[in-house]
Amino acid sequence: MSKKYIDLETLKYILYDIHNLEGLLSRDRFKDHDIASLDLFLESVKDFSDRELYPYFKEMDETPAYHKDGTVIVHKQVDVMMKKGGELGVISASFDYEDGGLQIPFMAHQAAAFILDAANNHLPGYAGLTQGAAELIIEFGNEELNTAYVPNMLSGIWGGTMCLTEPQAGSSLSDIVTKATPTDAGFYKISGQKIFISGGDHQYAENIVHLVLARIEGAPKGTKGISLFVVPKNRPTSDGSLEYNDVMTVADFQKMGQRGYCTTHLGFGDSDDCRGWLVGEENRGLAQMFLMMNAARIAVGRGAAAIAMAAYRTSLHYANERPQGRKLTSTGKKNPSDKQALIIEHPDVRRMLLLQKAIVEGSLSLVLLASKYHDIIHSSENPEEKEKYDLLLEIIIPIVKTFPSEAGSTSVNNGLQVLGGYGFCKDFSLQQYYRDIRISSLYEGTTGIQSQDLLARKVPLQNGKALALLVDEMMRTISLASNFDELKPYADELSSSLQLSQKILQKLMPFAMKGNYERYLSDANLFMEYMSIVVLSWLWLEMAVNSKEKIAANDLKYSKIFYESKIHTMKFYFKYELPKTLSLAESLMSDEVLTIKGDTEYIV
Amino acid sequence: MSKKYIDLETLKYILYDIHNLEGLLSRDRFKDHDIASLDLFLESVKDFSDRELYPYFKEMDETPAYHKDGTVIVHKQVDVMMKKGGELGVISASFDYEDGGLQIPFMAHQAAAFILDAANNHLPGYAGLTQGAAELIIEFGNEELNTAYVPNMLSGIWGGTMCLTEPQAGSSLSDIVTKATPTDAGFYKISGQKIFISGGDHQYAENIVHLVLARIEGAPKGTKGISLFVVPKNRPTSDGSLEYNDVMTVADFQKMGQRGYCTTHLGFGDSDDCRGWLVGEENRGLAQMFLMMNAARIAVGRGAAAIAMAAYRTSLHYANERPQGRKLTSTGKKNPSDKQALIIEHPDVRRMLLLQKAIVEGSLSLVLLASKYHDIIHSSENPEEKEKYDLLLEIIIPIVKTFPSEAGSTSVNNGLQVLGGYGFCKDFSLQQYYRDIRISSLYEGTTGIQSQDLLARKVPLQNGKALALLVDEMMRTISLASNFDELKPYADELSSSLQLSQKILQKLMPFAMKGNYERYLSDANLFMEYMSIVVLSWLWLEMAVNSKEKIAANDLKYSKIFYESKIHTMKFYFKYELPKTLSLAESLMSDEVLTIKGDTEYIV
Repeated sequence: MSKKYIDLETLKYILYDIHNLEGLLSRDRFKDHDIASLDLFLESVKDFSDRELYPYFKEMDETPAYHKDGTVIVHKQVDVMMKKGGELGVISASFDYEDGGLQIPFMAHQAAAFILDAANNHLPGYAGLTQGAAELIIEFGNEELNTAYVPNMLSGIWGGTMCLTEPQAGSSLSDIVTKATPTDAGFYKISGQKIFISGGDHQYAENIVHLVLARIEGAPKGTKGISLFVVPKNRPTSDGSLEYNDVMTVADFQKMGQRGYCTTHLGFGDSDDCRGWLVGEENRGLAQMFLMMNAARIAVGRGAAAIAMAAYRTSLHYANERPQGRKLTSTGKKNPSDKQALIIEHPDVRRMLLLQKAIVEGSLSLVLLASKYHDIIHSSENPEEKEKYDLLLEIIIPIVKTFPSEAGSTSVNNGLQVLGGYGFCKDFSLQQYYRDIRISSLYEGTTGIQSQDLLARKVPLQNGKALALLVDEMMRTISLASNFDELKPYADELSSSLQLSQKILQKLMPFAMKGNYERYLSDANLFMEYMSIVVLSWLWLEMAVNSKEKIAANDLKYSKIFYESKIHTMKFYFKYELPKTLSLAESLMSDEVLTIKGDTEYIV
Repeated sequence: MSKKYIDLETLKYILYDIHNLEGLLSRDRFKDHDIASLDLFLESVKDFSDRELYPYFKEMDETPAYHKDGTVIVHKQVDVMMKKGGELGVISASFDYEDGGLQIPFMAHQAAAFILDAANNHLPGYAGLTQGAAELIIEFGNEELNTAYVPNMLSGIWGGTMCLTEPQAGSSLSDIVTKATPTDAGFYKISGQKIFISGGDHQYAENIVHLVLARIEGAPKGTKGISLFVVPKNRPTSDGSLEYNDVMTVADFQKMGQRGYCTTHLGFGDSDDCRGWLVGEENRGLAQMFLMMNAARIAVGRGAAAIAMAAYRTSLHYANERPQGRKLTSTGKKNPSDKQALIIEHPDVRRMLLLQKAIVEGSLSLVLLASKYHDIIHSSENPEEKEKYDLLLEIIIPIVKTFPSEAGSTSVNNGLQVLGGYGFCKDFSLQQYYRDIRISSLYEGTTGIQSQDLLARKVPLQNGKALALLVDEMMRTISLASNFDELKPYADELSSSLQLSQKILQKLMPFAMKGNYERYLSDANLFMEYMSIVVLSWLWLEMAVNSKEKIAANDLKYSKIFYESKIHTMKFYFKYELPKTLSLAESLMSDEVLTIKGDTEYIV
């Protein structure tokens, strides 16, 4: 079944050989682990996914979660995901020992989650959000909150959510109006509405612990007046039982995809009896939430990469089995007496498959790279190192969220096309992957929001230091690649693209300096696309360098073809994708301003 | 309701002002019509669409067609579409008087069908395929077949289909095995299976007339041994009644989108009692079918453009009503005390809307241009003129099928993104448009097939004459545009892109000459994309020239903003889309060969 939804060999190659998981294990934080034990963890997650996730993938789409009598009815595997997954450690594995975790590297934890996502993307979110909510309580909550909530969350008995969006505010968090009124009893009374809450309620959870952004009465306007609260659906009482906390599941959202992963509309305090407990400091809610947001954004990128991986494996499998048409003869005609060709023999099908492979495996490398940065930050005892990787993570995060989502969608689109008409039919899974992955560009900050984040916040960070550090990393790979004759031309191309990116910034920066931020940011999406392609080219060049080295040293853990195919895919990415930077640069450096609202209304 | 799914003003502008419908009306074939009467036809189709199509759009997705007891159960509006639509002339309007038509220009007929498609793309296909099937009988069938079938088809009482695809053959028609055995009674016995038959059966049709490709026993192998047959579900008997003709609806295909438009699997002659009547000559079936294929391919492009139009109008409407976030101030921050902005005020949302507008209206112009060529061909009494427009239609057809399908999908994708999370929810129609339009790149020849058609057959046609004629048309617009200072830079850019396309062909052609067709065609999809962008740029420049002229002459049938918005959208297309030709050229001219199967298996 393995090959059906994931290429485990490539996952391990990127985790162990490219991003050198072993190198992390010498750090104090991870000293109890070795590759063998982590490998065992991955294999057990793979087994679990084979048995409990993948077989229900289609069924969860066909019997979506739905709202009924004030709760949400979800597929029975949600219960298995939470409880058996909880036992397996998929919620807590990278947490500290003292918080109930195993202290494994975040990178290994993400690799495990990638397997889950690829097997069935409707399920891991329940665990992932619970993990994120628990992390917030651990990081910012007091001991009392930690003891009351975290253990049940890590074991999967209780679920967790993040409640940010409100109907009137959408992506604009400064417009949040959910209200928190202090009481003498230490808790706050919460009232308000939250929408698009993933995993917001279901029949298997004894309790759901919501991490809610709300405004304490009298708080400043805007994002500086937002605080973070723990608001459970049921509140623990002194006798250890649970009491309903006036958190109502008002409705759910029926979606085009990822239909087994429920999306809810919650009402807090309709009967004036909803209690919330402040997490951390007053008015610091958004900053605190954002500290966890990096992990959430890595998770979205990871999920998208995994869906695209599963789709790629499915279309590759199909292309290797489906005979259709014939190879062209030297007269340009086909000879009907020739044997039918497998569709994988047609260049155009190969092009679509290679595009998928390039996007999928490149995205996976990107996700694990960000996870590695996260590990270094959280295990570092050297402030300079910590600062460096903090900056690297900051600059790369919007790309990690966006590239796998956007290019992943393109990848699945190509995968669907490989199947021809069958790709559109419900009997085949491509159409489901196509629908499922589309949410990735929307939740946890749309592509537009991520692009603004990249250009408005991350590029100017510490006067461009984050970007400069990233460029340094790339230059190192470029220099390594230049040692191989076969790779040198690609190293040069990447180098040119980097130079061109500097020119683009030189063109754009003055707008920001002159206070014309609207102009500076108007094509942020194109800049995001540009930088994403550059970063992916770098990651592919890195894989090619590694493969060249292994082949040269005849140090072949995998087959020779495995390594050659990585070099080949790098070349593919450089031939078909990297040139897109040329046209993006042309658009970005154009002096025409066409998307900023002027005096006339041009869109009619 | 108008603005909700279609911009009728733009449709009429492109039909009347850009492609000059009136100019056609001086031709003998159309002499009974004037703009007023055709306008009335369009308005009546619009009324019909408002009442009978648009209100059922969502419902038809939620209650898809399904197979039951040997037939397919479809939504009740299918019956209305066929019979009331038939009365209205939507099946037959462009047919000859003698065949029961109104002899209106095909271009006006397509404009009417565009309205139907935009209102509800699940319905017009039933009428469109019936039209195509009737056309084949009229064109190639004998008088007897015509009398027996055509009148009931044009009135919508009987349906019609085209049966090409078989399970083992897919897109490769040379592998068709459906068998036709001659009998002494003049008919043939038909046996075989056909899949992906749109509109193949439903409970409202008294009869369905299938136009079936089959192989007469002993016919040559490959496409040269395929003949065309009329095979009705029920055969008319001498007493005027109908007798079951052993055409079984074996199953249906449940699809991701366009779910109200049934897709069936048909079995012919399971009980050895299926009769077919030869249409035209033996072994000429494919050529005959292809004569109608141009219309079918225009129809797919039209349908895709119309879905994208409806999606665009929906997201534009949303963007004009939804407040969210704030405009940036000169400090780069947002002031939470400022009034919320409508999302249409955000540059990134405007970019997405303008991209939609550029693709949608450009696609519509392309579809109507091809329809105009069709009209000229069918009304010409001048052999030179006919040959010229025959060639122009041939070269443009694969683009007409492909660009609206592929770019339309991108357009709807952007439209969905404009709605944020709501775009993914079933309560909003964007997700349905997103699913529906995806079939356009698959049926009637996938994008891969169309791209091969463009580069393998159409570019070399008559030693490049078709392409040369198309370039002449473009040069005319370029020369007109150069008269306006404001437009000259764009004219120059288009001219450069045309020159670069010549260089690309100079690079590729030698491969074909040396018999290396696989190499010649391996990046045909990229060449298709290149030429599509060039053609669309041309059509936008044409609209800009017209708008400039109207504004200069103060001859404003529509508002000044209407014309200005066309010029603005042209500029948008030239800034954001035309530069893509640069990167496509880079990939196309690369000497690297990465998608042709070599000795090693690189895709692992």
